[in-house]
Order: sequence, then structure tokens, then C-alpha cells
Amino acid sequence: MRKKVVILGSGNVATHLSVALKKADYSIIQVYSRSELNAATLAKNLDCCFTTSINELNNSADYYIYALTDSVLADVINQVEIYSGIHLHTAGSVTIDVFRQKFKHFAVLYPLQTFSKQKEVDFSRVPLFIEASDDYTTNSVRYLAEKLSEKCYLANSEQRLKLHIAAVFACNFSNYFYNIAAGLLHESKIPFDVLKPLILETALKIQTLHPAEAQTGPARRNDITTMESHLNLLNDKVLHETYQSLSEQISKLYNDK
Amino acid sequence: MRKKVVILGSGNVATHLSVALKKADYSIIQVYSRSELNAATLAKNLDCCFTTSINELNNSADYYIYALTDSVLADVINQVEIYSGIHLHTAGSVTIDVFRQKFKHFAVLYPLQTFSKQKEVDFSRVPLFIEASDDYTTNSVRYLAEKLSEKCYLANSEQRLKLHIAAVFACNFSNYFYNIAAGLLHESKIPFDVLKPLILETALKIQTLHPAEAQTGPARRNDITTMESHLNLLNDKVLHETYQSLSEQISKLYNDK
Repeated sequence: MRKKVVILGSGNVATHLSVALKKADYSIIQVYSRSELNAATLAKNLDCCFTTSINELNNSADYYIYALTDSVLADVINQVEIYSGIHLHTAGSVTIDVFRQKFKHFAVLYPLQTFSKQKEVDFSRVPLFIEASDDYTTNSVRYLAEKLSEKCYLANSEQRLKLHIAAVFACNFSNYFYNIAAGLLHESKIPFDVLKPLILETALKIQTLHPAEAQTGPARRNDITTMESHLNLLNDKVLHETYQSLSEQISKLYNDK
Repeated sequence: MRKKVVILGSGNVATHLSVALKKADYSIIQVYSRSELNAATLAKNLDCCFTTSINELNNSADYYIYALTDSVLADVINQVEIYSGIHLHTAGSVTIDVFRQKFKHFAVLYPLQTFSKQKEVDFSRVPLFIEASDDYTTNSVRYLAEKLSEKCYLANSEQRLKLHIAAVFACNFSNYFYNIAAGLLHESKIPFDVLKPLILETALKIQTLHPAEAQTGPARRNDITTMESHLNLLNDKVLHETYQSLSEQISKLYNDK
């Protein structure tokens, strides 16, 4: 019999994860979200019903998946009055203890990926990190995870927090720098397109080289002339400071004796 | 008749560019480098001769390509006593004026890519930016550039400097963050491999989405709980400050009314 899933949340993770679960033949029976528009959109996409009220959660599901912003997660858990099924969240930086003393079977399933609604993702390549309350739940969640992805690992709450911080640096901050670069080119009326091969190659390089080896640029060479000409052009105070601080960090790493 | 090229430099750009020129049927007749080992290695790779003395440069070449660190470029140009041929450098942040008053025909050919000797690059996809002293030189360098790459553009020295700064943010600083992420995972005994799909997807996303749309993560959501738990774990003062500053920048961009 197909396992039944209730999805709490309608953001980027909720959307991509529930679509992947449906493809893996799980039955998504309900979407909950505070936002009626988002709940309705995702429910339509999944061909299931939705609710904006926690009191109306379907109580017959095998899995309750909380794919919610970290800051509202504890509050929503607090209001849930269904104790059957496995309750699991998807947050990198929230410990599994958020479920303890309330539910019998609970877990974390953390997908280490960046999701935007506008961009499809091959879920089979997304690393999934599992932590669970007990052996029965570990096995059940691992079975589900392995239906979704080829890359499933066990990780405790401390490791998951480290993974999340690493992901912020490697993904969120990098993407912010793509955005800064786009702004600099825009000032010179150069289309952002010309940077796309460089950005892709930077990410491809570290698939085979360690980033410590892959590093290039003026800071690695301690090329002070170039760094100064760049700083002279960066009028924005915050950008100027960011360039200076990161260049110093890289120079120190490669050029200190 | 095959055009003859002398390469000055034996670093990452010199290596990749000269290999691409050889493939495009240019005749590399000599490599100059201060480092005998590097000069010999590259010359062997190209099946040509090399020198470590500027006085011994072959004076019959059509192109003299200065692929040198910005800080030594002017000094090397100063010592060259061959005035025939087209003299061109590959530096993003050095103006074309470095050649003026010395040579008749001169140019810049700036490849917007990250090169490491250990990693092959498909040169036909590398955007090349051209600036030249006169129409004859523009045409000649453009002809050469179009033999190497499908993506050739004209750009003046000011635009090239902006491109270089943008590349430092989008590539050098992003790679540095991959390295920070690798260090964080190492502390928790998690292999860096698990981050590779995330890094690749981050770079793939902006091939179709603008980075301003592609942004995800706690700072974009202004998820203070998560950011605080990350800052609590970052004991290294410099990393702590970097995380805080960038998170503030991103939060401001997305959450200011």
C-alpha cells in the first residue's frame, strides 16, 4: 500500500521535496501552509487537498514532513495534535530535539541543495542527511530517502549544523557574489552572460581539484598592484571593505611564510 | 603561412592560451620565462625552444603575447627591444597604455576564465575581450581570437577592469568560500564530496535565473534564529565577521522596505 504523506510548508524545499515524493510513488494527501495562495498552488501541482489551519491536519498519514522556515518550526510543532506517524523536519540548523517529548517517532531529513521554485532539480543527485529517534524510524526514513536520492547519509544534529554553515558559504554567499558581479557589469553596460562560463568553470573545477588548489586571482598571487586598482574603483564602502577583507584572508593563506 | 608567436610567461594563462594557439595552428616559436623550470616545461609541452633572457627573444614573430603577472608586466615590456610584430598582454586590470610610446601595434586579449594547470579548459567557450591600438591590429587580433573562441568581444580598458573585479567576486571569492566550507566539514569529519552537487547547482542555477532571483538561505529569509546559531558555532574571529557582514548585506538587500 502507498505510504501517505502530509506536507507542512509550501516554500522551495516543500515544493521540490513533495514533487520528488510523488514521483517516487508516495501519496501526498494534504498540504498545510499559512499562505492560502502558496498552499493552493502546491496542492494543485500535487493534485491533493490543502489547509491553512493546523487543526484540520489529516490524522491518517504515515509521514508528517515539516518543511518550514526554521523560525516558525517550533511554533507549528507546538500546535500539532496528531501523535501517530513519523514527524520529520528538513532544517539544517534545527536539532532533532525540537520533536522530543511530544512525538514517539521523529526524524530529520536534510537535503543539502539550493532550491528555487523556478528551477527544476534532479532530486536523485541531492545528498540527504538522516537523523532519527530510534531504529524503526531510522529504517523507515532511510527507506523513503533512498527512494528519492542515490546519496543518503546519517548525520547527527551537530554535523548537520556544520553542513548548513558550510552550505551558506559555498552556496548562499557565492550566489550573492554572482549578484555583486552582475551589478558591476551592469554599471559598465556589459551583459551578465559573459560571466556565466567563468562561474560554471569555477564550480566544475572543484569537482576534481580541492578548492585550495583551484584558487586563482590577484590575492592568491599577492598581486598588490591589481588589488589596489580594484579597490580604487570600488566606491561603495561595503563592497570596498568586503573586497579588502577577503583579499587579505586569501593572501594570508597563500603567501604567509 | 602559419603565423609565429612568442609567449612571454609560463603560468596558468600562458599555458592554456599557448596550448589553444598551437591547436588553432599557430606556430609557437619560443617561450620566455624567468623560471627556467616553468619555461622548459611549457616549451616541451609546445615542442618549441625557450629562454630565460629577454635579450634572446626571437625577433621574427608576428605576435608577442605577454601572459605575465600584472606586477612584472611593465618591467618586462620595458626591457624588450623588438619593435616589429603585434605586442599584446592578457591582463584584466592593466590598461593598453602600458604599450604606448614603445610599440607601433599593440593590443590586449583578456580571457575571462579561471585557469589552473591541472585542469583542462575548453578554450572555444572562453569569452575573449579585445582592445587594440589601431584598426589593423584590431582586425589581426580579432582574427586570432576567433580561431580560439566562439565568444569574442571588444572592450576598452575601463570595461576590462570592471570585468576583472566582477571575476574576482564571482570566481576567486566564491572559490575561497568553497575552501572555507571544506574546512568546516573537515572539522566534523564529513568529506567535501557531499558539497559538490550544491556548488555545481548554485553555478548552474544562474545560467537560467538571475542571481538576484536565485538567492536562497537564512539571510535572504532574514531567519535570525538560524543566523545566530551559525554565528555561535563560528569561533574563528575572521570567519565570524565575514559571515555576519555578508548576512547583513543580503538581509538588507531582500528585507529592507
